[in-house]
Amino acid sequence: MADKTTEDILRRLKSVEGHVRGIERMVDEGVYCVDIVNQIVAVQRALKKVSGLVLDRHLHSCVTTAIKSDDDESRERVLTELMEVFEANGKA
Amino acid sequence: MADKTTEDILRRLKSVEGHVRGIERMVDEGVYCVDIVNQIVAVQRALKKVSGLVLDRHLHSCVTTAIKSDDDESRERVLTELMEVFEANGKA
Amino acid sequence: MADKTTEDILRRLKSVEGHVRGIERMVDEGVYCVDIVNQIVAVQRALKKVSGLVLDRHLHSCVTTAIKSDDDESRERVLTELMEVFEANGKA
Amino acid sequence: MADKTTEDILRRLKSVEGHVRGIERMVDEGVYCVDIVNQIVAVQRALKKVSGLVLDRHLHSCVTTAIKSDDDESRERVLTELMEVFEANGKA
Repeated sequence: MADKTTEDILRRLKSVEGHVRGIERMVDEGVYCVDIVNQIVAVQRALKKVSGLVLDRHLHSCVTTAIKSDDDESRERVLTELMEVFEANGKA
Repeated sequence: MADKTTEDILRRLKSVEGHVRGIERMVDEGVYCVDIVNQIVAVQRALKKVSGLVLDRHLHSCVTTAIKSDDDESRERVLTELMEVFEANGKA
Repeated sequence: MADKTTEDILRRLKSVEGHVRGIERMVDEGVYCVDIVNQIVAVQRALKKVSGLVLDRHLHSCVTTAIKSDDDESRERVLTELMEVFEANGKA
Repeated sequence: MADKTTEDILRRLKSVEGHVRGIERMVDEGVYCVDIVNQIVAVQRALKKVSGLVLDRHLHSCVTTAIKSDDDESRERVLTELMEVFEANGKA
């Protein structure tokens, strides 16, 4: 998985990690609550972008393979999983 | 801000940071996409909980003070900010 | 409650109602799934706007009154309710 | 599209329509803001369920057909659309 998307995903996760550390400092220093909440919102958006990249790769790999294979069971499993991810993501 | 809520918020942010590092490892090791997305969803939920704690403290401190203070302008500013946070949070 | 905000809220809800009826027709006529989902997303955004208006009025009336009154219990109740609304809205 | 899922989707949309009319009455009668917001949240959840049903049918029909069809262009279009729906839904 050392392709370009993987590198992009890892780079974004590292940035999220640094962002969260920055928020810890803000909390520690008693920064204004609203500014902290806004930074948390920014991290949540960054994570949504990462989910999107992972999901896009999933659609182009596993989902495409499972649907192309005439194995009804694995196709059904992959589509059910996809619906669960959609729902979980909508509530996250 | 060395009170109990601050400690709780910091503890949760540290846990989010570790969780994100764990997801980086999963991506690196080529773990199944759906499992990665589910872990990202879990982190987003944890962050929502942190936002809630920060916001709850904000309501009990700054918002309460501004509303009690008969200063119409600062009350208005605090309520406008609150609505912005509410909207940003709904779209995060 | 026959003020301007109430009229605005009612007008928006009537528009949502008409929008939903339009989606029913689309489903009935077998319109492309993605177009239907996009219309549902548009209705959800319209409803979010309505929630915002109702909440904004709530902050300026009940919440302000409860916080100004030195009744700790009613202030606490109003703030707890507000946090519940925030959380429910974030998951809707 | 007179199948069972379509009937279920239409039945749910009719119920949403009635629910929205009920909220209009609540606003008209000056019901407590928080109760109104909670009803709007309930409608948003019902709409999310409808989106899910439409999307599930979409995955089992158009998406499956496009991916099976060796037509790279239409497969790509269907997957791009799916990602757009996913993102729009996450922000709704």
